Amino acid sequence: MSRKVRLGIVGFGNQGSNYAKFLTEGKVPNIELVAITDTDPGRRELIAERHPDLAVFDDYVTMLESGQVEAVVTTVPHYLHPQMGIQALERGIHVLIEKPAGVYTKQVRELNEFAASKPDLTFAIMFNQRTNPLFRRLKEIVSSGEIGAIRRTNWIITTWYRPQAYYNQSAWRATWGGEGGGVLVNQAPHNLDLWQWICGVPKSVFAKAAFGFRRDIAVEDEVTVVVDYGDGATGTFTTATHELVGTDRFEITGDKGKIVVTDSQTAVVTRYRRSEQEINVSIPTEDIWKMTRDEFDPNEYYTHETVEFDSAWGGQHATVFENFAANILDGSPLIAPGSDGILGVRLANAIHLSAWTGKEVPMDFDEDEFLGLLNKKIAEEGKFPQRA
Amino acid sequence: MSRKVRLGIVGFGNQGSNYAKFLTEGKVPNIELVAITDTDPGRRELIAERHPDLAVFDDYVTMLESGQVEAVVTTVPHYLHPQMGIQALERGIHVLIEKPAGVYTKQVRELNEFAASKPDLTFAIMFNQRTNPLFRRLKEIVSSGEIGAIRRTNWIITTWYRPQAYYNQSAWRATWGGEGGGVLVNQAPHNLDLWQWICGVPKSVFAKAAFGFRRDIAVEDEVTVVVDYGDGATGTFTTATHELVGTDRFEITGDKGKIVVTDSQTAVVTRYRRSEQEINVSIPTEDIWKMTRDEFDPNEYYTHETVEFDSAWGGQHATVFENFAANILDGSPLIAPGSDGILGVRLANAIHLSAWTGKEVPMDFDEDEFLGLLNKKIAEEGKFPQRA
Repeated sequence: MSRKVRLGIVGFGNQGSNYAKFLTEGKVPNIELVAITDTDPGRRELIAERHPDLAVFDDYVTMLESGQVEAVVTTVPHYLHPQMGIQALERGIHVLIEKPAGVYTKQVRELNEFAASKPDLTFAIMFNQRTNPLFRRLKEIVSSGEIGAIRRTNWIITTWYRPQAYYNQSAWRATWGGEGGGVLVNQAPHNLDLWQWICGVPKSVFAKAAFGFRRDIAVEDEVTVVVDYGDGATGTFTTATHELVGTDRFEITGDKGKIVVTDSQTAVVTRYRRSEQEINVSIPTEDIWKMTRDEFDPNEYYTHETVEFDSAWGGQHATVFENFAANILDGSPLIAPGSDGILGVRLANAIHLSAWTGKEVPMDFDEDEFLGLLNKKIAEEGKFPQRA
Repeated sequence: MSRKVRLGIVGFGNQGSNYAKFLTEGKVPNIELVAITDTDPGRRELIAERHPDLAVFDDYVTMLESGQVEAVVTTVPHYLHPQMGIQALERGIHVLIEKPAGVYTKQVRELNEFAASKPDLTFAIMFNQRTNPLFRRLKEIVSSGEIGAIRRTNWIITTWYRPQAYYNQSAWRATWGGEGGGVLVNQAPHNLDLWQWICGVPKSVFAKAAFGFRRDIAVEDEVTVVVDYGDGATGTFTTATHELVGTDRFEITGDKGKIVVTDSQTAVVTRYRRSEQEINVSIPTEDIWKMTRDEFDPNEYYTHETVEFDSAWGGQHATVFENFAANILDGSPLIAPGSDGILGVRLANAIHLSAWTGKEVPMDFDEDEFLGLLNKKIAEEGKFPQRA
C-alpha cells in the first residue's frame, strides 16, 4: 500500500508554488510530486532553483503526454480549468481542479459531461473547506435532520479583505475577460460551495452586486444575495473584499433548532426539545403578554451546545490531496467530487445575472443569456478575447 | 411650570390599559390622565373599576368635544390612526399616534398633510425605541460621520416570537382587512423606523415575505429584504415571529468604521484610524500574502469600543409621553414628530409590494397600485371592508 500517485502541477503562481512546497516536504504521504508546468520562463527558473529534482515543462499537454504523471492539479486562471480538465481526462490522467471549476456553467457542464464518460478516472475539486471539521459537523447536523427542515439561512462573510495592491498583482485578476468576476469567482467560491453543500441548492436568486465599489476594478468587490429555497424558506449571503474588519457570521434556522457560527470557528447549536410547531401550539395564552414584555424565558424549551474548532489553514489542502490520491489508489470516496464544482459556478452566475438584469433569476437560468452578457462585459473591457 | 397636560386615551386594550396604569401612577410628571374611550362595554366596566376617577367615553369624538382633554393618544387598530389623528387635530386637540402611523402611505400622507396645516398643534408618534440610549448613540455616531459614508447595513431581528395563541387573541389581528399585515405592521415598525432613522432612507427594495409560513395566519410571519441606498451601498433586513430563540444583530459598515449591535444592548464600535480608502492604498504589497493566509493583523489600523446599555422596557414609553407633553407646554423639540411615521409605513408597503409582485420596488412606488393589491387581499379574505 506504499505506492504513491505521481502528480504534476500546472501553474507555479501563489497557489501552485505553495502546493509544490508542502508536497515536496512530504505532507501528503500518498503523493509524489514529479513535474511542474509553467508557461512563464522566469517561473520555470524558479521551479528549477527550488525543486531541482522535478521535471519542468513549458507546456501542459507535453507534461500530460510525457508518461511521467498519472494525475494533475490545475492552479491556473479559472477560465482554463474546464478545458485543462478535459485535456487531462482525454489522456487518461486523473485531475484535481482548483476552485472555481470554471467561470460559466456552460463550460463546466461540458467538463462534467466529459468526466462522466470516464468513470475510471478520478475527477475532484479543491473544496478544501469541506475538510474543515467545523463545516463537516454542520453538514452532519443539518443532513441528519437534527435541526429540522431549514427555515432560513444567513451568511455574512466579509473577511475576504483585499487591498488595491492585491488586485494590481496580475493583469488577469479582477477583470471580466481574465478572471470572469471578482469576489464571487475568487474569494467566495468556498462559501458558495459550503452554503449549498450544508443548506441545499436554492430555487432562485435576487442579488445586488457593487462593481468597483471601493476598489479600482471592473468586477464586484461586494455582493448581497437573497435566495428562495421554496415553501417560504429563504437565505441571504453577503460578501465583500473592502471591509478592513470583516464579519463572518453564519446562521441556519430550522424547525427543530438553530446553528450560529462565528468566525468559522465557534458554533452555537440550539436544539429545541420538541419541534417549534409543537411548542408553538402548546404555549399557554397567559405567557403571551410576558413574551411581548421580554419576560418570557424559553429555556425550558431548548438546549444550547457550543462547539469550538481550530482554524486549520493549509492542512485542509493537504487533506484534499490525500483524499484525491486515495480515490485513485483504492477507491476511497471523494470529499469533493469534481462534478460538484458546477454548484458554486451556477450560483455565482445566477448572482451576476440578477445583479446585471435587476431581476430575480431562477437557478435554471438561460446559460446562453449569461454567457452573452459576460461576453458583452469582456468586449467593453477590451483586454481579453470573448468566450464560447 | 407645574401645569400638566390633560390627556385622553383611545382604546383600553393591552397597550391602552398599560398606559393608563403608569400614567395614573404618576410616572409622567407633566401629564394628567383624565379620560378613556372604549367602544366595548366590558372594557368600559374595567376602566370604571380600575380607574374610578377618570371620565369614561364610548365614543372617541364625544371625548374630543367634551372639553375635558387637550391631547389624546390612539391605541387602536392601525387602520384607524390616520382618521382619528385628523379628527383630533380638526378639534384643536394635540395627538400622539401609536405606531404604525397607518397601514398604507396614502392615508398617512393625508394625516401628515392635515397636520401640516395645524402647525400650532403637537403631532407625535410613539416611536419609543428612539428614546433608547443605545439607538440614540448609534444615531449620533452615524449622523456625525464618525464611521463615514455607509457602505452596508444588516439587521436580523427575529426576536419577535409570537405563538399561535397570540394571533388568536382578537379577530382583527394578523388579517389583511383588520390589521393590514403581520410582523411588518405589528412588531417590526420600531425596527423599520430605527433602521431608516439611523442609516437613512433607501432608494429601492426587493423582498421575500412568507405568508402564514409557520403560523396559521393570512399575513406574513417572516420577511427578508434587500435595500439599495444608491451608489453601491446596500442593506438587508430580516424579521420573523416564529423563531423560538431569535437573533437580534444589527451591523452598520461605513468608510471609516463599523458598528455591530447585539441584542439591542451591546454595541461594538470600530473606528478606523484613517478612512478605509486611505488605508487600502497604503497597505504594502508584501502584506498581501499574509492577508490571504489570515496572518494579517489589522490592529494597527483601528480601535474598538464596546458600549453596553441596559434594556429599558416601559420607561421608554413614559419618556415619549413626557416629551410629547413638553412640546405642548413649552415647545421642547419632539423626539419622534408624527410626520416621521410615514417612513416606516412606506418601507413596509414597499416590502409587501415587492413580495407580492416578485419585483424590486422603488420607494416612490405607486400608492394606488399598493392599495389596489391590499384591497384584493382584503376581498379574498372576506372578513373586513376594503379601504379607500
